Amino acid sequence: MRKYGVADTTFSRVDMGSVAINTIKKEDPEAEIARYTVPGIKDLPVAAKRLIEEGCDGVITLGWVGKTMLDKYSYLATSIGLITVQILTSKHVIDVTVHEDESEDLEKLKEIAIDRATKHARNLVKLVRDGKNSLTPLAGKGLRQGYKDAGPID
Amino acid sequence: MRKYGVADTTFSRVDMGSVAINTIKKEDPEAEIARYTVPGIKDLPVAAKRLIEEGCDGVITLGWVGKTMLDKYSYLATSIGLITVQILTSKHVIDVTVHEDESEDLEKLKEIAIDRATKHARNLVKLVRDGKNSLTPLAGKGLRQGYKDAGPID
Amino acid sequence: MRKYGVADTTFSRVDMGSVAINTIKKEDPEAEIARYTVPGIKDLPVAAKRLIEEGCDGVITLGWVGKTMLDKYSYLATSIGLITVQILTSKHVIDVTVHEDESEDLEKLKEIAIDRATKHARNLVKLVRDGKNSLTPLAGKGLRQGYKDAGPID
Amino acid sequence: MRKYGVADTTFSRVDMGSVAINTIKKEDPEAEIARYTVPGIKDLPVAAKRLIEEGCDGVITLGWVGKTMLDKYSYLATSIGLITVQILTSKHVIDVTVHEDESEDLEKLKEIAIDRATKHARNLVKLVRDGKNSLTPLAGKGLRQGYKDAGPID
Amino acid sequence: MRKYGVADTTFSRVDMGSVAINTIKKEDPEAEIARYTVPGIKDLPVAAKRLIEEGCDGVITLGWVGKTMLDKYSYLATSIGLITVQILTSKHVIDVTVHEDESEDLEKLKEIAIDRATKHARNLVKLVRDGKNSLTPLAGKGLRQGYKDAGPID
Repeated sequence: MRKYGVADTTFSRVDMGSVAINTIKKEDPEAEIARYTVPGIKDLPVAAKRLIEEGCDGVITLGWVGKTMLDKYSYLATSIGLITVQILTSKHVIDVTVHEDESEDLEKLKEIAIDRATKHARNLVKLVRDGKNSLTPLAGKGLRQGYKDAGPID
Repeated sequence: MRKYGVADTTFSRVDMGSVAINTIKKEDPEAEIARYTVPGIKDLPVAAKRLIEEGCDGVITLGWVGKTMLDKYSYLATSIGLITVQILTSKHVIDVTVHEDESEDLEKLKEIAIDRATKHARNLVKLVRDGKNSLTPLAGKGLRQGYKDAGPID
Repeated sequence: MRKYGVADTTFSRVDMGSVAINTIKKEDPEAEIARYTVPGIKDLPVAAKRLIEEGCDGVITLGWVGKTMLDKYSYLATSIGLITVQILTSKHVIDVTVHEDESEDLEKLKEIAIDRATKHARNLVKLVRDGKNSLTPLAGKGLRQGYKDAGPID
Repeated sequence: MRKYGVADTTFSRVDMGSVAINTIKKEDPEAEIARYTVPGIKDLPVAAKRLIEEGCDGVITLGWVGKTMLDKYSYLATSIGLITVQILTSKHVIDVTVHEDESEDLEKLKEIAIDRATKHARNLVKLVRDGKNSLTPLAGKGLRQGYKDAGPID
Repeated sequence: MRKYGVADTTFSRVDMGSVAINTIKKEDPEAEIARYTVPGIKDLPVAAKRLIEEGCDGVITLGWVGKTMLDKYSYLATSIGLITVQILTSKHVIDVTVHEDESEDLEKLKEIAIDRATKHARNLVKLVRDGKNSLTPLAGKGLRQGYKDAGPID
């Protein structure tokens, strides 16, 4: 049976972990789900690694990033780490990140977070359950998570 | 028989995956081609790794990058990841990236994407099929993908 | 029995190592604690690696970063290194960093350092002793270390 | 018998690969030389890795970098990759890079490229053939490649 | 018997390698010392790796960095590489770096270089010979290399 990992943080101002779990349950009701909560984004790579080690076929991480240049450097280091985990395990770790400077409006920020977590949870299920061509009909379609789709050119 | 991998994204606004596949088919008609579609550029390194693990001799990745500094950090993390995949597998992963800020004109952007994907698909076939000296006659010639060649100095 | 590692620096202007040790002792009185002091932040990843190799179940690192762009690049390299240690060992290395430009007021800077070291030492104990769901009740709650909590949106 | 690897690109506007080969032949006439030409700098790390795998004792890579911030990010990713190849193989990969913004004058740029490739090809021969103390008489002497030496202070 | 590695460059304008060697000899007279001279900072990680492979218990690297943004990117790539060497070998590689823009005054720059190399050579001896608690009495004391100590807050 498939098993999904959900890694989230206490730093985040929106409970994206629950959003992801609910979406996965709806999309793949028979699957098992494991959750791992860490303080901040730099702790997500090891959480993803450990979730994979306990049998997850794929992981979604839910990060929240502050506004300063240092937050952005932490984002960069985390991104490199999450990619490294994927390379070493050959499993997908889909990275949902919300940046506090994406909107001044907190309600809008929450909407972005929920939309992004929902859509990427669906992406994870598709990739894990249906494989490498499950998203191919949408290739080049300009899809966006957190915002409305840009669409294909022409 | 040779096998090529093509990894593309749903974020892209141009279907560069199909462009690459058609080019590879024309250049090396007997080869097998596997496609892997992921949400965005940060998912490309693991897609390339998995394509290599299922037997691809080389991979072309087709990424589309937004305009913000964060998009550029994602580009940097992805580039490091794609290079790491190549180092660990000793296979070529040729990285086609189109940046949304390369042109304000969407038609121009599409032309850049198609030209770059086509030329780099040819490069991949040459390297995989004909080996390390296949491009040597063109060394130092100032070739460009997506733009017209700069040419050699003098 | 659990064993925690504490890695700190002579560069730091606050003895955060002692703060972390005292917090761990209070939170998990029976645990063993090993300390490793290095010159600066770029020496922390190997200290964390060695602490894990001598049996620590998790490590807290306590770094202090100067104000220049070069200090920030060192911070970035260190962050990547600390994440790599975690990925390779599958152990948590919780990274406490204080940046000299977080406050012009030295007393305030010291308060930030003590608060951050204390709260993250508690996080480490929770993760090491109580596992991946120990922080889940606080997921998405907008917790902060060094500052007051931002809180959840809504 | 010693074997040197030379990795260059079709992106470059100067045929630095031939410059490096001619220099190596002059400095170490009995050695074997293998050349590997790739499209751009991000393909150099895997070329260096493959040259080492086919028996090269050391490699020189010859990269050409454009003027935009994205080119510089590609330079950074490539540099990290080339260093990783060296760490994993314990072989020298000497990295010659020319940046298009080093001079507005194309003739000057070509001179820089030739001088840098020549001097670093000599450095490679010294390190591979004569070992870790071959350059020690020049330690701290402020040598430069592509420009005239800065010289030691005092 | 202990063995120390000293890796330096021909790019540097001060012979910091000799400074480090003399300091190590004074601090640990019976120890063996191996020196490795490379062209520039990006060659230091593999030099450190090779010194460790020939039996060094710890290494000090002595880098000199120019003033441009590209020099700083090379510094970043080198720093990541030196940290990676430490993580893979579990040995200390203490990184002394002098940036040309630390002072306009060449004499001052030389003083910085000598002071930094001397103090960090002592740090290396302490860590290698006396272990993880040898610097603990100085933890949080605001020590600086190349400048006068900042001291602890309060």
